[in-house]
Amino acid sequence: MEVTRRDLFKGSAALVVAASASRVALAANDPLPSWNDSPSKKAIVDFVHATTDRVSPKFVPEPERIATFDQDGTLWVEQPMYSQVVYCFDQVPAVVKAKPELANVEPFKTVLTGDRAAIAKLSVPELLKVLAATLTGMSVDQFEADTNKWLKEARDPRWKRKFTDLTYAPMLEVLTFMRSNGYKTYIVTGGGQDFVRQYAEKTYGIPPEQVVGTAGGTTFGYDKTGRPFLTKDPKLLLNDNNAGKPEGIHMMIGRRPFAAFGNSTGDRQMLEYTKAGNGERLAMLLLHDDAEREYAYGPAQGLPDSKVGTFTQALYDEATARGWLVISMKNDWKRILS
Amino acid sequence: MEVTRRDLFKGSAALVVAASASRVALAANDPLPSWNDSPSKKAIVDFVHATTDRVSPKFVPEPERIATFDQDGTLWVEQPMYSQVVYCFDQVPAVVKAKPELANVEPFKTVLTGDRAAIAKLSVPELLKVLAATLTGMSVDQFEADTNKWLKEARDPRWKRKFTDLTYAPMLEVLTFMRSNGYKTYIVTGGGQDFVRQYAEKTYGIPPEQVVGTAGGTTFGYDKTGRPFLTKDPKLLLNDNNAGKPEGIHMMIGRRPFAAFGNSTGDRQMLEYTKAGNGERLAMLLLHDDAEREYAYGPAQGLPDSKVGTFTQALYDEATARGWLVISMKNDWKRILS
Repeated sequence: MEVTRRDLFKGSAALVVAASASRVALAANDPLPSWNDSPSKKAIVDFVHATTDRVSPKFVPEPERIATFDQDGTLWVEQPMYSQVVYCFDQVPAVVKAKPELANVEPFKTVLTGDRAAIAKLSVPELLKVLAATLTGMSVDQFEADTNKWLKEARDPRWKRKFTDLTYAPMLEVLTFMRSNGYKTYIVTGGGQDFVRQYAEKTYGIPPEQVVGTAGGTTFGYDKTGRPFLTKDPKLLLNDNNAGKPEGIHMMIGRRPFAAFGNSTGDRQMLEYTKAGNGERLAMLLLHDDAEREYAYGPAQGLPDSKVGTFTQALYDEATARGWLVISMKNDWKRILS
Repeated sequence: MEVTRRDLFKGSAALVVAASASRVALAANDPLPSWNDSPSKKAIVDFVHATTDRVSPKFVPEPERIATFDQDGTLWVEQPMYSQVVYCFDQVPAVVKAKPELANVEPFKTVLTGDRAAIAKLSVPELLKVLAATLTGMSVDQFEADTNKWLKEARDPRWKRKFTDLTYAPMLEVLTFMRSNGYKTYIVTGGGQDFVRQYAEKTYGIPPEQVVGTAGGTTFGYDKTGRPFLTKDPKLLLNDNNAGKPEGIHMMIGRRPFAAFGNSTGDRQMLEYTKAGNGERLAMLLLHDDAEREYAYGPAQGLPDSKVGTFTQALYDEATARGWLVISMKNDWKRILS
């Protein structure tokens, strides 16, 4: 059994050493078994060791170990449409049932037809109307019940699996590896904070309080029996995309991350902000370049922009210039889905 | 053999085992030694035992154990003026030095005179001008440097001690007791989130990400060298008082607390929201009724309303009607300050 310098700081008690040794042995086996032995994998492992080894000049005290992960396209599949948008479309019939006058009003009329080509052509303001009608106006408890019902029943169109099953095995390993080394893992998503919090704990081991996302306000009030409750209202408090990501991190966490993972231009500022901190920082972008096992998309590969998880050439160039790692799904990952 | 606190952290074989045993013994002896043996103390201890004992019908799984604490007047002294307001007044000379044209503009002119009676008469809009000028417009890094300098140098008028020394020993014991039983402790304050985060970890053992407070937005940008940074701007995102407390808890934590502690009408909705949850919940209000050792104030005692930490008769009546515990500083606490 080899004992590293790190073990020395874990205490000399026989039990403590035994526990450490077994943890190290496990880690020695391979903390990231779904990754090929590539520079990307090595960079992650080296970063974690460098920042958690007490004698390393790059050591980071445990309370400061914050790692942030974009969700859509970074932790789970985002194509052909963000899951939350699918949820919103799926809720439209119930919304129209409650307010029948909407049946002949756009964009609800088009959504009700189920005509995918027509739905895909909805404008942003029309889309926002659908989001507002399906994500706000109800109590927080009602929203929780609705989303959990949907998460159990809905299936994605390609794999016919629950959306929460479409997570990337290699990324779940990164989450576990970082947490087992004292990192607090956060989701920092452009998706709805309230939506992602419904499943983040079960799906990623990330508790609700470590989910930062696009968030509307709520309004406190009392029901007829005098019981207080919160209603979701349409006022936007945090648009957690682009510059909103570092702004949201400051608001919700108050510490700069030491590691950040993303996959699109919406993550650019989060990665810049992370890397601008002192000491060792890790920034990674996931490139969707595996058309066979998942999807391949984005201008950085000369492919059409699907408008979902846009990876531009400019982002690719910035990653190269600033030393961010670009993960190739095709080359770096042995397997994709969990 | 006597085991000191330092030994707990040394990590050598015998001591780790001995220390764990002694910690249990210490807890068994008395987790709240600064509290008199009163119904309030018993209620806290009973609540923690009932919710953390696996065989109790009131057991709460560890991830759900959230306890929220108001700060001003609940964890530290709030009289004669909130510390953060003192900070803002103390910053005015520096603000005027940077913008000399403000010297003859109200309310800065009055603040510069140092005339306490005149300053006390400033209107709310004037006060907000002082807050905006001293809490926004600078980078997050600059604000951090300014507040930390002030926290080191400033002294309160009565005890001539640093403001961060004016914490309540009995409440620090509650924080430690709850954390040692798997509770995640949060500050939920009307004070500025960015301000309180500067000292919460050292002062209370509460990390920045567990401080929820009144919060303005920030704006992401780049300095001349291209380095990204955040500027504090005056846009209010969360007014963490009254109904804003449960709204802020939903936004920042996403789980309903099992225990909540406050001392004024600003905490009412947080306590209502906490108690409205299923299962065993604890709500407590601290009554400042010890004029000799600290302060006595508030209409609930027939005393003048100091406008800082208002405890009305209506709040007292609600506490009685809903079974919230009212802690008497005078009768329940052996000592006050840490």
